[in-house]
Amino acid sequence: MGESDVDDIAVGAAVLGTGGGGSPYLGKLLAQQAIRKHGPVKVVDASEVDDSALVICCAMMGAPTVVAEKLPRGDELIKAFTTLERYLGRTATHTVSIEAGGMNSTTPLGVATQLNIPLVDADAMGRAFPELQMVTPTLYGIRASPMVLADEKGNTVLISAVDNYWTERLARSITVDMGATASIALYALSGVQVKETLVRGTIGLAQELGRVLRDTRAAHGDPVTAIVDRLQGRLLFAGKVVDVARRTEAGFAKGSARVEGFDADTGAFLELQFQNEYLVAVREGDVVVSVPDLIITLDLDSGRPITTDEIRYGFRVAVVGAPCDSRWRTTAGLELVGPRYFGYDIDYTPLESLGMGTAGGGT
Amino acid sequence: MGESDVDDIAVGAAVLGTGGGGSPYLGKLLAQQAIRKHGPVKVVDASEVDDSALVICCAMMGAPTVVAEKLPRGDELIKAFTTLERYLGRTATHTVSIEAGGMNSTTPLGVATQLNIPLVDADAMGRAFPELQMVTPTLYGIRASPMVLADEKGNTVLISAVDNYWTERLARSITVDMGATASIALYALSGVQVKETLVRGTIGLAQELGRVLRDTRAAHGDPVTAIVDRLQGRLLFAGKVVDVARRTEAGFAKGSARVEGFDADTGAFLELQFQNEYLVAVREGDVVVSVPDLIITLDLDSGRPITTDEIRYGFRVAVVGAPCDSRWRTTAGLELVGPRYFGYDIDYTPLESLGMGTAGGGT
Repeated sequence: MGESDVDDIAVGAAVLGTGGGGSPYLGKLLAQQAIRKHGPVKVVDASEVDDSALVICCAMMGAPTVVAEKLPRGDELIKAFTTLERYLGRTATHTVSIEAGGMNSTTPLGVATQLNIPLVDADAMGRAFPELQMVTPTLYGIRASPMVLADEKGNTVLISAVDNYWTERLARSITVDMGATASIALYALSGVQVKETLVRGTIGLAQELGRVLRDTRAAHGDPVTAIVDRLQGRLLFAGKVVDVARRTEAGFAKGSARVEGFDADTGAFLELQFQNEYLVAVREGDVVVSVPDLIITLDLDSGRPITTDEIRYGFRVAVVGAPCDSRWRTTAGLELVGPRYFGYDIDYTPLESLGMGTAGGGT
Repeated sequence: MGESDVDDIAVGAAVLGTGGGGSPYLGKLLAQQAIRKHGPVKVVDASEVDDSALVICCAMMGAPTVVAEKLPRGDELIKAFTTLERYLGRTATHTVSIEAGGMNSTTPLGVATQLNIPLVDADAMGRAFPELQMVTPTLYGIRASPMVLADEKGNTVLISAVDNYWTERLARSITVDMGATASIALYALSGVQVKETLVRGTIGLAQELGRVLRDTRAAHGDPVTAIVDRLQGRLLFAGKVVDVARRTEAGFAKGSARVEGFDADTGAFLELQFQNEYLVAVREGDVVVSVPDLIITLDLDSGRPITTDEIRYGFRVAVVGAPCDSRWRTTAGLELVGPRYFGYDIDYTPLESLGMGTAGGGT
């Protein structure tokens, strides 16, 4: 995988990232810079990973709003990664994305090329989520720690926690101290665990989504419809962003955005609530889609994914729902990432069972 | 050193602890319990430590107000200590106190007896201070980290920071997450460093102070005067505590206590301000003693040291000043622990140069 492939992956991952995972543009630039310097990255299918492999996840942690203003220096991730290797007493054979998010899909590309190890075509969420324990390996009892955080100043912290909630809690405080962002290495997995617990094919899917958007635009087609079709999702709303409330709190970017339908007479509007990622979409009091299903906000004309840290007044957007990995819909999955975990007093209803939601006026 | 010696050490260390370092009573009980189970502790003079020794400091970190209600389970310190040993790839030959404080002077006794290693008769402050970087080794450029924190739940965190201020900052947040207290191992020192950088003889001095108090009481003498004489300090004020404001903030016990002189007509009073330790004593607008000199609050009759977490309305107290280790009075020392570091806009004046402060009415 070379520099040019990264363009599609970054865009497609931002679609899957449901608004989170940081800026796809910055992630792309960082990955391309690394590939230019260290060479292309070998991407392998999960099925090609040896059972005895050591696969380590790496990512940026913190508030995307801050990452955009305080870019990593470049060697923090390598430091986090190699510190974890040293602690484990083994060298990683592969790296892998923890989430399909704007920045965090491309983040591991830099590590892969610098350390000359392949990237596994998979991730641990099938989308992006705001907290560390929100990964499919947690559903299999796999520990996030030992985990290492590193900052641009040269500080590193190694956590060994009793469970993944404690890893998240400790890591979040450290991230805040480090300046609301940190480079992290965690979830050291065997090849067996990679094959059993991860969401497969995420990098390939991201690249395909990026290509679909590019091709559709070139053919003067409708990019939003192309994405809806590819993800077997549905268009929930289309309109103009009329208000955004955003705050950086406890190391997260939290807030909400109000989208008003184009037909002003109907007064229809949709509210998107987010914590790094879009969590819930409410239309006139009714939840039309919620975590763990994907809430994807796209530029209405170009289909470009819009992250929670960049959404702003005046954007004309399409809000698309898409089904999540089926493991998130189990009882254990919903305990980990369902709407109640995020403080919403609602039961999760799969997107497919919710009333048809397309509305908002003429697209 | 057996169980009975711990009584004197705990009391004497609480005198040197200037109100901080946690409850001497709890520290004593924990150390005595460990000695009863694992046998007496060998205490060695710093001069007896081999140059190539590995000496690791251990302590409780956090708010003494919380430690008193959330006692350590007992194995957290050992876990912190051995995790640091494993990281260093070496077994410690000795342990040593980081501070002369109520609880933290006796804390290393438990580690020494359980791991069957000697305790060095020294500490890293010659008193107690509220933050990790406030130790004499910092003046010699020695790093606090690698440092390990452990809690009663089984979480451990290993910090490698660029300097001792960053170690303090990261460790403080982690301590707050761990429930406002943590067991810590840090400042891994060679024998050469122990001899050059620590304050020697602290354990012996603490034991002597404890014995002085005991003997003076037995002889119906004046315990306060006996302490003043032994430490070459001075009695600054005597009176009754009439008001205490105390809060647990950012993992510290902060606040102030107002002491009113016995002769109500003079209206004389003294205010003690504290952050775990007593930092400044102000008498009618004038600072009569400040950090880094020792501010020691004793029960007026028994000479029992009174910590900042137990001082309360109605206590009849003597406030004593005593000179600190001379290294704290250097420019570098005052930068680290002088009154300005704690937010007081005053220059440090050595106790001996301040106007004679004994007052407050008939003792």
